[in-house]
Amino acid sequence: MEGKIKDLVKKIEAKTIERRRDFHKYAEVAWTEFRTAAKVADVLQELGYEVLAGDDVIAPEAMMGVPEPEKLERHVKRALAQGANPKWVEKMKGGKTGVVGIMDFQKPGPTLAFRFDMDANDAIEAEEEEHRPYRENFASVNKGAMHACGHDGHTAIGLAVAEILTTLKDQLAGKIKLIFQPAEEGVRGAKAMMVKGVVDDVDYLVGLHLGFAFNELGKISCDAGGFLATTKLDVTFTGHPAHAGGAPETGRNALLAASTALVNLYAISRHSQGPSRINVGILEGGTGRNVIPARAVMKLETRGATSTINEYMYNEAIRIIKAAGDMHGVKVKIAETGGAAGANSNPELGERIKLVAQRMELFEEYIPAKNLGGSEDVTYFMERVQQKGGMAAYVIVGTELAAGHHDFRFDFNEEALSKSVALLSGVAVDILTGEK
Amino acid sequence: MEGKIKDLVKKIEAKTIERRRDFHKYAEVAWTEFRTAAKVADVLQELGYEVLAGDDVIAPEAMMGVPEPEKLERHVKRALAQGANPKWVEKMKGGKTGVVGIMDFQKPGPTLAFRFDMDANDAIEAEEEEHRPYRENFASVNKGAMHACGHDGHTAIGLAVAEILTTLKDQLAGKIKLIFQPAEEGVRGAKAMMVKGVVDDVDYLVGLHLGFAFNELGKISCDAGGFLATTKLDVTFTGHPAHAGGAPETGRNALLAASTALVNLYAISRHSQGPSRINVGILEGGTGRNVIPARAVMKLETRGATSTINEYMYNEAIRIIKAAGDMHGVKVKIAETGGAAGANSNPELGERIKLVAQRMELFEEYIPAKNLGGSEDVTYFMERVQQKGGMAAYVIVGTELAAGHHDFRFDFNEEALSKSVALLSGVAVDILTGEK
Amino acid sequence: MEGKIKDLVKKIEAKTIERRRDFHKYAEVAWTEFRTAAKVADVLQELGYEVLAGDDVIAPEAMMGVPEPEKLERHVKRALAQGANPKWVEKMKGGKTGVVGIMDFQKPGPTLAFRFDMDANDAIEAEEEEHRPYRENFASVNKGAMHACGHDGHTAIGLAVAEILTTLKDQLAGKIKLIFQPAEEGVRGAKAMMVKGVVDDVDYLVGLHLGFAFNELGKISCDAGGFLATTKLDVTFTGHPAHAGGAPETGRNALLAASTALVNLYAISRHSQGPSRINVGILEGGTGRNVIPARAVMKLETRGATSTINEYMYNEAIRIIKAAGDMHGVKVKIAETGGAAGANSNPELGERIKLVAQRMELFEEYIPAKNLGGSEDVTYFMERVQQKGGMAAYVIVGTELAAGHHDFRFDFNEEALSKSVALLSGVAVDILTGEK
Amino acid sequence: MEGKIKDLVKKIEAKTIERRRDFHKYAEVAWTEFRTAAKVADVLQELGYEVLAGDDVIAPEAMMGVPEPEKLERHVKRALAQGANPKWVEKMKGGKTGVVGIMDFQKPGPTLAFRFDMDANDAIEAEEEEHRPYRENFASVNKGAMHACGHDGHTAIGLAVAEILTTLKDQLAGKIKLIFQPAEEGVRGAKAMMVKGVVDDVDYLVGLHLGFAFNELGKISCDAGGFLATTKLDVTFTGHPAHAGGAPETGRNALLAASTALVNLYAISRHSQGPSRINVGILEGGTGRNVIPARAVMKLETRGATSTINEYMYNEAIRIIKAAGDMHGVKVKIAETGGAAGANSNPELGERIKLVAQRMELFEEYIPAKNLGGSEDVTYFMERVQQKGGMAAYVIVGTELAAGHHDFRFDFNEEALSKSVALLSGVAVDILTGEK
Repeated sequence: MEGKIKDLVKKIEAKTIERRRDFHKYAEVAWTEFRTAAKVADVLQELGYEVLAGDDVIAPEAMMGVPEPEKLERHVKRALAQGANPKWVEKMKGGKTGVVGIMDFQKPGPTLAFRFDMDANDAIEAEEEEHRPYRENFASVNKGAMHACGHDGHTAIGLAVAEILTTLKDQLAGKIKLIFQPAEEGVRGAKAMMVKGVVDDVDYLVGLHLGFAFNELGKISCDAGGFLATTKLDVTFTGHPAHAGGAPETGRNALLAASTALVNLYAISRHSQGPSRINVGILEGGTGRNVIPARAVMKLETRGATSTINEYMYNEAIRIIKAAGDMHGVKVKIAETGGAAGANSNPELGERIKLVAQRMELFEEYIPAKNLGGSEDVTYFMERVQQKGGMAAYVIVGTELAAGHHDFRFDFNEEALSKSVALLSGVAVDILTGEK
Repeated sequence: MEGKIKDLVKKIEAKTIERRRDFHKYAEVAWTEFRTAAKVADVLQELGYEVLAGDDVIAPEAMMGVPEPEKLERHVKRALAQGANPKWVEKMKGGKTGVVGIMDFQKPGPTLAFRFDMDANDAIEAEEEEHRPYRENFASVNKGAMHACGHDGHTAIGLAVAEILTTLKDQLAGKIKLIFQPAEEGVRGAKAMMVKGVVDDVDYLVGLHLGFAFNELGKISCDAGGFLATTKLDVTFTGHPAHAGGAPETGRNALLAASTALVNLYAISRHSQGPSRINVGILEGGTGRNVIPARAVMKLETRGATSTINEYMYNEAIRIIKAAGDMHGVKVKIAETGGAAGANSNPELGERIKLVAQRMELFEEYIPAKNLGGSEDVTYFMERVQQKGGMAAYVIVGTELAAGHHDFRFDFNEEALSKSVALLSGVAVDILTGEK
Repeated sequence: MEGKIKDLVKKIEAKTIERRRDFHKYAEVAWTEFRTAAKVADVLQELGYEVLAGDDVIAPEAMMGVPEPEKLERHVKRALAQGANPKWVEKMKGGKTGVVGIMDFQKPGPTLAFRFDMDANDAIEAEEEEHRPYRENFASVNKGAMHACGHDGHTAIGLAVAEILTTLKDQLAGKIKLIFQPAEEGVRGAKAMMVKGVVDDVDYLVGLHLGFAFNELGKISCDAGGFLATTKLDVTFTGHPAHAGGAPETGRNALLAASTALVNLYAISRHSQGPSRINVGILEGGTGRNVIPARAVMKLETRGATSTINEYMYNEAIRIIKAAGDMHGVKVKIAETGGAAGANSNPELGERIKLVAQRMELFEEYIPAKNLGGSEDVTYFMERVQQKGGMAAYVIVGTELAAGHHDFRFDFNEEALSKSVALLSGVAVDILTGEK
Repeated sequence: MEGKIKDLVKKIEAKTIERRRDFHKYAEVAWTEFRTAAKVADVLQELGYEVLAGDDVIAPEAMMGVPEPEKLERHVKRALAQGANPKWVEKMKGGKTGVVGIMDFQKPGPTLAFRFDMDANDAIEAEEEEHRPYRENFASVNKGAMHACGHDGHTAIGLAVAEILTTLKDQLAGKIKLIFQPAEEGVRGAKAMMVKGVVDDVDYLVGLHLGFAFNELGKISCDAGGFLATTKLDVTFTGHPAHAGGAPETGRNALLAASTALVNLYAISRHSQGPSRINVGILEGGTGRNVIPARAVMKLETRGATSTINEYMYNEAIRIIKAAGDMHGVKVKIAETGGAAGANSNPELGERIKLVAQRMELFEEYIPAKNLGGSEDVTYFMERVQQKGGMAAYVIVGTELAAGHHDFRFDFNEEALSKSVALLSGVAVDILTGEK
């Protein structure tokens, strides 16, 4: 069967690359993936999947960092103009650009889910001959949106896997769920799908990422972990302006509040149970040199080795920020704009994936990656599945990179697409043939 | 009449010095002046004054910085052992050691009040041959209490004036009030007497101090002013200890709260309407190097050119301190331990006093002192009298000083006593003969 | 003679208004006043004044807040295109847009200087029918530059005074210096002319401003004062970025340094000798939420009642900022972008101006303005003249205002122009006829 | 042979307990262990060991937190009065109270070292019937010094092991070094002996502690680790006093510097390579409420999972403290008063000790203790031995405790003494019989 999979992958390789380039060209940032998601839904439906989208897969109260309504509206129009199926766009109004394809193989067996993220980055793509997407004419036409993290590839991989599994469906048991998630950048989208219950019935969940630390084709990690739980916060301090020479005591100094908060945020006590992090990445405030600054905006994040440690950091941060406002008579508004759980792959599932990969002879080097250190919101799905007694794993597929992730010259070796399609298809067959 | 006054002063000069030395020997710090106040009350009563003391002249809710009950009790016993009249001590229970002597001259006329402070400093008096009180055997026998600011002299002056005015009473009109105030050090006592209404019927109020900036006999200022309004605060931060290596996150760091408060207190905005001040004079916290500090104590003061500006500083300070506690999950207890109003002498009254002094040829040099800058709680009386339409003045009588005020070698030239007695008696005659 | 002045003023009133509107239309911000200054130089030369410009009146090392060379170059081209005389523009290369017109009346007498500022504000002028400059077609054609503080009027007044004095020159003695200063906004320009020695030989200096607090025609202050000395500083903190999750300890946090500086700057001790001020009006730093912020920019100002107090604030600020950089291993660059001295009018000169105004019956209400509280760099001239034994005064001429100073709808009652021309001409005659 | 050891241990058990009680009674705090060290030296010499003490085993420049000379002198006298051999006390002048006993078994073999700490705690021992040392009359006669951490037991164990090994010396090969270290409390003493080279020739080093987390006889950990490296610092900030009302700007505020340092110390970035800690346990400053505080003292510690991480914390702390002084014009003096390295037992050596213990049937429960988290300066010896290619282990011997370590009611089950003597003797035989 694994040989057959490799043949099927080969047969659709060109189509997979073409799709990746299409998504790349029409790059869409978080919560505006109307065209990408509509294309995904079209393909899944055509392949015979039950397709859920919009309110059926997204809990609006858990969406984080959603753009203003006008911006969403502008993107709806753009997406329609770029060929998005109005039927899906209608369902996705308000930025609910998640899609789930489900196929029940009508025989008893486990439920397996794969998760693919679809959003692009806030970046302006390089327009240079050396940059292949530009040279070969699939650079982003959407100014300010660019696939600089490989999610275009992830989405194309998902559709290829979808196609292969339909071909093999008679041999399979249980159920497959293909989760296409919006807004992974800024860790804003997974929570809303998790809260909606998308993985509540899942026994095995696998996430996959191209590249990361492995910038060579042939390298792979099958049980990546050590993701830090994280929360992203935007804080607005609103005081009262005053002439700094004439009547400074009548002002309420937003920058004084923000600066006091900033220093004290870094001073949150270390946690004895594991790594914790805090960073105020951006602070901007004030309008004129001679005006007591009446407004300041702060963008920060907390992290923790576990969700508990992150929660500790979060609670401390909230208390400090509010008190800094009180201290200087300044109003404080805190918005949670993103978050991810802490999570690790189940070693047993990682091992099983590795065995599949070895049987299929897809990779040369198997590398452990237990201490990634960054944050990915796939962890919301992983943690949920694990809490319900299932297993989850995160796979990193190596590939040469033209530049680092999030760089405006980012590109990857497209051979990694087929390797990924083959691996996930193999894993699906392994798990869904009940042969375990 | 002014010649007669000078004769009377001369006659009782030895007694005045003797009294000063007696008060010096039995020095009593703030709110424990049981013996001094009882002696004062005895003398006033003997001279025919109506004598009010204890609850009749002190509003307990406005007493600031009162010692613990056990300490008061210890001092009651000490004072009785040192010859205090139990009748008065009984009235003064709880530290209400204020005394007011009133004489109504039975003819229509204004009410004039003189204010004298009676308390000693927290200091251990020098035991050296060069120190006259030690050499001549009137150094303090009460360890830790020492008259290092001349209040022993003020009290003796008050009793001498009391005696002279009884001699002259047939020529006088209106009413005299001799206010003997406890707890001027730390500006803790005047407010309680002012709140009780002691100066509510006063038309003219005069306060007097020996020495100050004028360390030469013959110098005088008759209309001193520029006192800053002030509030004294003691703050206790109570957090929670924890092992700094093993579980720092379980602690609540009192020193972190206190330090954040400290820096932000100094950062209170300047006030456009006049000088303001803030100082955290003392901060102490923590128990061991490897323990998250669970307790910190801070002693601070605010000041302002006017009571309004001081109130602004006070309100800002309270808000900052509370928020600093909230910021680090630390409890905050704030005690107001002292305070004074902002005040200036009425120039007309100052001028009138100067004319008396010049007629009596008591001094050689008249110096303006409009910007004293420090704080004295006589200002509560002055402000009150001025608010009610009366006039107030503060007189500084120069004298050689053996060492600076509050120094453990402090002493003054006792010739300044008779000069002061003569001046105040002259002023009383000037105002109470209705000759104005 | 004063009647004659009023006639002359009347005769050129239309031309004065026209000039004001011309300067308004071709508004030029600090150090880019190539066209305005060239026009001024043309007129002065035509009137027979000795005209100094560029390097002859500006000390380049004392120019503050000068734009980048490319920006200056762009403005040179714009000014030439808008009719500036290339002869003057050439002299003013590098932004040296100051002009001084001198006339020696060939008879012994004092040297009198008037100072006029020429620069516009960084503002986008209102394009609304209610806004007269727009309605009557003299709104700024230079986007981003707008005369919102009346300096267009000041410049026109200066040229009118220049013209009248040439008419009267046979009756005058001594010398007149008409100083046209660039870059008063941001208090950046006066120092460079003062350092060059422009007022070193001046016996009497008069500055004038339209409007200010007096928004009614007929009001005037002849001896304004209480200007605070001030220094404007731009600070750049440069640290080192790092991934906030992966390796935070390898970063050098510019925002942590800047925030520590900010809180401590406000905590600089009050000064016992007079009002002081500090304000950090703007702080901006960081690039991304998950990156240790490597850069922060701070705009601040210090002020003091006297140059000495401002210097104290400045020295403290510099020390604190540098130490905050050291504290966090962050490089600090401090640029002085503006400054003004503290100054007051000489009361005698103010009184003399007032007498002239009263004789000429130009105003209805004479208002003292001793505590302006703001900053104006005319003070560098005033202080210098006073230090050399001369006298200086600052005159504020009331006028109705369409909106506050620096507002994008600012406009004033042009009748104030002729009143100002008449007053200054009258003052010149008074001082330069030696009749005093 | 192990049976023989157990017999020997039994034979000297009473003497061992007696010695422990003697050391307990004459408790001596860090660097004043003149009597304890002299007794140790006497016994070792009598047993035939080569005995080094004073300058031969202590590098004075690396001694940390040494008391003032007068205090040392007082303790010298006390120790002599309490029976210390003057010969040794003379050698130990200046607090150099370390002793090393060496026996070379004259056959080729490894060098094994045991380390015992001798100092008592700064505590006042309980005087209660329930407290056995008091009841049985061996409570400390040296007020303020108390063995509340079991070092009296460690010292007694060391002497017992010394005695047993002399009995067995003919069977042994290689060399034994018995290191008796002063000043473990405050982690002040080990570094000076390590720097002197005391363990430079050591192949195997074993440290031992009674109690710790194991409060039951029969429990043991043979390979404890996870000690945090640490540095202890005392900081003095010296500014300049000033009257807070009259001339605050002339002061240099030591508490403002210290508070700024404190907040920023806690804000040192977390380290991605492992746990780090910082704590300012004590801050005290200022003299009077109305005086700009001119002096502040801070006691702090840094920690790190490794010496590298602790060094990072230390360097950051030093830079922050110095800059805080500079920021407020305040002088800073930093004294290093203690330190320990980070260290772990070599698992092989731990395993070997465990095998010995199991063969000897001394304990019931073997517990891993890899994450102790605290600090012990035995780590300087361990790290040094490991750096030179040797192996080190730290053994914790369980015992019931009357109260927690450092508690003034601390006491332990003396049966743990013989268990420890037997174990170490067994380990010595195992390693020094070359049977390995």
